[in-house]
Formats: sequence, structure tokens, C-alpha cells
Amino acid sequence: MLTVAIPKGSLLADTIALLQKIGLDFRMFLDSSNRLLQIEDPTGQARALLVRAQDVPVYVEYGQAQMGIVGEDVLREKQPDVACLVDLKFGFCRMSIAMAKDGPFRSALDLPPHCRVASKYVHCAREYFQGLDLPVEVIPLYGSVELAPLVGMAEAIVDLVSTGRTLRENGLVETDVLYESTARLIVHPLSYRLNRDNVQGLVAQLRDVVA
Amino acid sequence: MLTVAIPKGSLLADTIALLQKIGLDFRMFLDSSNRLLQIEDPTGQARALLVRAQDVPVYVEYGQAQMGIVGEDVLREKQPDVACLVDLKFGFCRMSIAMAKDGPFRSALDLPPHCRVASKYVHCAREYFQGLDLPVEVIPLYGSVELAPLVGMAEAIVDLVSTGRTLRENGLVETDVLYESTARLIVHPLSYRLNRDNVQGLVAQLRDVVA
Repeated sequence: MLTVAIPKGSLLADTIALLQKIGLDFRMFLDSSNRLLQIEDPTGQARALLVRAQDVPVYVEYGQAQMGIVGEDVLREKQPDVACLVDLKFGFCRMSIAMAKDGPFRSALDLPPHCRVASKYVHCAREYFQGLDLPVEVIPLYGSVELAPLVGMAEAIVDLVSTGRTLRENGLVETDVLYESTARLIVHPLSYRLNRDNVQGLVAQLRDVVA
Repeated sequence: MLTVAIPKGSLLADTIALLQKIGLDFRMFLDSSNRLLQIEDPTGQARALLVRAQDVPVYVEYGQAQMGIVGEDVLREKQPDVACLVDLKFGFCRMSIAMAKDGPFRSALDLPPHCRVASKYVHCAREYFQGLDLPVEVIPLYGSVELAPLVGMAEAIVDLVSTGRTLRENGLVETDVLYESTARLIVHPLSYRLNRDNVQGLVAQLRDVVA
């Protein structure tokens, strides 16, 4: 049976809605009283795993899920060995640099060498500043990255921005966009090539729905 | 002014209660309507930052907080450059190995070489299995680690266990304890030695309260 890895959090509702359009009903994951992390579609066509967004590529990489839906931000940060096949056109956000509104800097290029940049996306942040040939110290954080410039631990942050509300509330301003991100369909390469459990057919259906 | 880094999550309530015993009132962080991540004690003696447990040592390492409270599990996993001074005697839990109740293995020593172990605590897991001279592949996950053995992605997990309820609900059994963990008081080494903002006095007070 085909297994799909579904991300908890902001992409969940759109992911469930998308899969419903190709006849897979995993709405049980939207029920707040549900504690199951593994359910079957009522028609018995497929199984779904509800996992953290960062874990979706892991389940697909190891072939425990043949397909998964995840934000491009996670893929760029983790660089997993999966086939990234379809831009699903939801979950729009951008990976941006932000700094204090009242501070001395207005863009990444203003930052002094060896300054500190806090981020949950250490790889993306390093890659961007390396591209600018600007040596910075990336401070890895797990949450509330917007606090780092407020307390003076970092001159800037690299973080995912959706509405920009959190930045505004914390007196930060978005200065540079590293890239725009949307939800992506990823597939276990071998399962796709061998067309196990009709992966190719489902990918084609998802492509049609999105187009 | 002295700054204390306080962990969100399971240690929060006990941390606030402990600090109250030495005259620091950060109960505002327990108010679910509070959105501030940085508050001052009403007496003006100290400031507190509310951050993810994994970020507490980062704020202390960089000297943005002179003191922090965090679980030993985070310290063992991250190995930050901080002084770990007082066992605060709350937040009891243990880092354990668990595997399927109905599976073929009963302890870490039963596991076959090159099997897969899923964990959020990659460093702790690697260190333990290296100590056993048992080569395993550690699969890094961010959440719901208990799902990995259920879907067959891993033979075992290494995870923090408190009541054991999650393990039981998922048909897993705890087989080996790597170590027991409690909340710890950590301090920025230089601030402690130089006694900035009377760090030494507060540490002494906390020691007394715990003893």
C-alpha cells in the first residue's frame, strides 16, 4: 500500500485538501482529538503518516513513505536524497533576512564581517553569506529567532516569513529575500522509477490537480 | 541587570516557582495570553528570556543570559561551553532505548550491527552505541520518534522518557537507560568568575533553596 508522509503544522490543512482531490481522505488528521499518527484512507488505497515537517524527507528518503509533502525551505536546508517533483502552489512564504528597524543596517551587504546571524536554517544562512563572500557567525537556534537581535545576540536573522507579523511585532524589518518557498511533492526515487504502488499514476493526478 | 534564560515547555512551571523562592517573579510567562519573550521582574532585579529548551544554553554561552535553567538531556546532547552548577531536583526523566514490545529484541545488546536507531538525541545515541562497540545507523528525527519502529524505519529509538505513557500507547517497551536527567542551573563562565550582577550570590541562594 502506498504511504504518504504528511507534515504537521501550517501545511497540514492544504495538504489534506489536495489529497482529497485525488480521492485520498485523511481528514481524520484535522480532528484535534485524533492521537493516531498513522491512518488509512477509508477506501484502503493509501496510508498516511503525520510527522513533523522536517521529518517528512527522512521518511521518504528511507522509503517508509513513497511520497511526501513538505515546504521547499526544509528541502533546501536538509538537502535530502529525494525526487522533488511538483510545486504544489500553496504554503507561500519566503526565506528572508531581517534586522532591527532602528538599527544601523539596511541590507545584508551593510553587515560588518564576522557579525552574528541567528537562524533555524543554518545551512541556508551559511550558503547565502558565502555567496556574498561575507564571513558571518551563524548562531543555530530552535525557536523564536526574532528574540536574538532584540537582546543583542545577533545583528540579523535568517528566517521564514509568511505575513511578516512576527517581525513587525518585534521591531524587525525584512531586508533581503534569499528565496521564495512553496509546498512540494517529494517522492522516493526508487519507488518512483519502479512505479511501486502506482506512484507514477498518483504523481500524474496531483500534477493535473495543481495545473 | 542579570538575565535568566527560562525554558518553554515541561520545565517552565517548576522553573518559575524556583525563581520565585529567591525573590524573582516571572509568573507572567505562565499567563497563556502573554506574548512577550522578554520580561523584567517587578522589583527590577532581573530580566528573563523565554526560549526553547534547546536554545537556553545558546543564550548563556553567548553571555546574553548570565544564568539559565535547562534539562541535562539538552546539555549532554549539545555539550555547550557553560558552567553546569546545580542539580535543581525537578524535571526528572531518563534517556532510554525503547523497542517494539512484540519484536525480537529485549535490550540494546540484542540489536544486530548496522541496525537503525531513530532519535532526536543523535549525539547521545551515537555515544552510547559507540560505547557498546555496536555500529548502528542513527536516523535523526525532530518529533514523534515513537512512530519510527511502528512503520519499520528503525529497530529501536533513543528518547527522553518521563511517565512512559507515549511508549506504552505505541506498543514500545523501555529496555535500557542511558542516563537519568533533571533540570540544571547553568551559568556563563566569565560572568560567574567576575561575579557580574551578583551571579555568585544568586547561585548560592538557589543552592540553598534546592538543598
